[in-house]
Amino acid sequence: MMKNYKMILAYDGGRYNGWQKQGNTDNTIQEKLEGIVSALAGCPIEVFGSGRTDAGTHAYGQVANFHMEWDGSEERLMDAINEKLPEDIGVLSLEEVPPRFHSRLSAKAKTYEYTIWNSKRPPVFERKYVFWCEKPLNVEKMQEAAKLFLGEHDFKSFCANKRMKKSTVRKIYEIHFHCTEDKITISYYGNGFLYQMIRILTGTLIEVGEGKRQPDEIPAIFAALDREKAGFTAPAKGLALKEVFYGERQEEYDTNY
Amino acid sequence: MMKNYKMILAYDGGRYNGWQKQGNTDNTIQEKLEGIVSALAGCPIEVFGSGRTDAGTHAYGQVANFHMEWDGSEERLMDAINEKLPEDIGVLSLEEVPPRFHSRLSAKAKTYEYTIWNSKRPPVFERKYVFWCEKPLNVEKMQEAAKLFLGEHDFKSFCANKRMKKSTVRKIYEIHFHCTEDKITISYYGNGFLYQMIRILTGTLIEVGEGKRQPDEIPAIFAALDREKAGFTAPAKGLALKEVFYGERQEEYDTNY
Repeated sequence: MMKNYKMILAYDGGRYNGWQKQGNTDNTIQEKLEGIVSALAGCPIEVFGSGRTDAGTHAYGQVANFHMEWDGSEERLMDAINEKLPEDIGVLSLEEVPPRFHSRLSAKAKTYEYTIWNSKRPPVFERKYVFWCEKPLNVEKMQEAAKLFLGEHDFKSFCANKRMKKSTVRKIYEIHFHCTEDKITISYYGNGFLYQMIRILTGTLIEVGEGKRQPDEIPAIFAALDREKAGFTAPAKGLALKEVFYGERQEEYDTNY
Repeated sequence: MMKNYKMILAYDGGRYNGWQKQGNTDNTIQEKLEGIVSALAGCPIEVFGSGRTDAGTHAYGQVANFHMEWDGSEERLMDAINEKLPEDIGVLSLEEVPPRFHSRLSAKAKTYEYTIWNSKRPPVFERKYVFWCEKPLNVEKMQEAAKLFLGEHDFKSFCANKRMKKSTVRKIYEIHFHCTEDKITISYYGNGFLYQMIRILTGTLIEVGEGKRQPDEIPAIFAALDREKAGFTAPAKGLALKEVFYGERQEEYDTNY
């Protein structure tokens, strides 16, 4: 009998061209998974992700689903997929879900994390998962600016796709800063994110932290609806998809709980 | 004026042939540092480490010192070295120390950490820094066995160098287990460690955790003075030199504080 399986995936995106398979380029995470699942099933199977992640971006909790006939247990299926996966992609959990569940269409909200290494000490072990800013950043100013990102806005100025025809309105529920001696981790919890939106939001916050911009410039950036007005695109390797939410989404706005 | 500088170093040992330069092989961490420091000084300079680390073993806190004429600040020197180092080696701190300080000869004790990934979930981000044991290990039994390693012993059975002519007596002050959902980290604090000693101690503990050995077999392994009686050599990539101590060493014996 055809079953619908939901997986939670982790991957080190460093050597991949992102999640989504593409016409001409190769080496995407979706392709790796489809190859393995299709081989197990003996027929072509499509694996649906909750959303694309950019080339070089990581995931601690990407969600994907696929439909397959399988007589064994969920555990056996998870093991069989993990056995074939390269060591930089892993299935963390796998369970059967109702037939209508769809990783992308059913998703209510997502959390992404961006990690800035803000220290003179080099990030020897973290080097592939952080963006290294040596100069001290003013985190208070960054938090002040981040508050202005909260809520529902047209994020067109923070979208790298200039020919985007669909709505660029999104809602950010929470932005959370977690600081350690060397690291600033910013997590963004929202109902959806545009192409490179988090990297541009983060690049803008970094410029605020460096003193190149002031928090009170943010409203004008929104109003311009122009990508050129926002900050730089922070590198992909500092970004990770942390969690995808399918239940009720939280509607409170909060920075730095 | 000639000054003596002490550095604390972190390195990802994955692509190196260990700390110490060797006659014929290349690509050691010591060589990388000597090349950079010698170039800055304009003459050959030797960099002394607190001890060797094996090929593939990591360090969060290796200590090394060198003598050099330098007019600038400590910070400038540290920056100059870091600028030239590859991204998998980093100087975390650098300070001038008294002329007689020697990283190895002045060292009183060291802490090494061995990390076992003990989960069915693959260690996607930690894969290069852990040894993956899928089967659940009995940590209580491992702790029981580890207690028998504490104190002063002849560790000849846990030394990979069969032609070791010097004393194989060492003292372990503390062994600490830190367990999270997926990981078992064992830290060993002692006055010195023989060639591959921690990897063999850990391999023996893993065999205890798997139920292949019992804790009460440990005294007979010590008594045999025979490498063949101890467990396997756990892989280098799970091992890291965490800290080198130069002050008073702690003489209490303790597991799992």
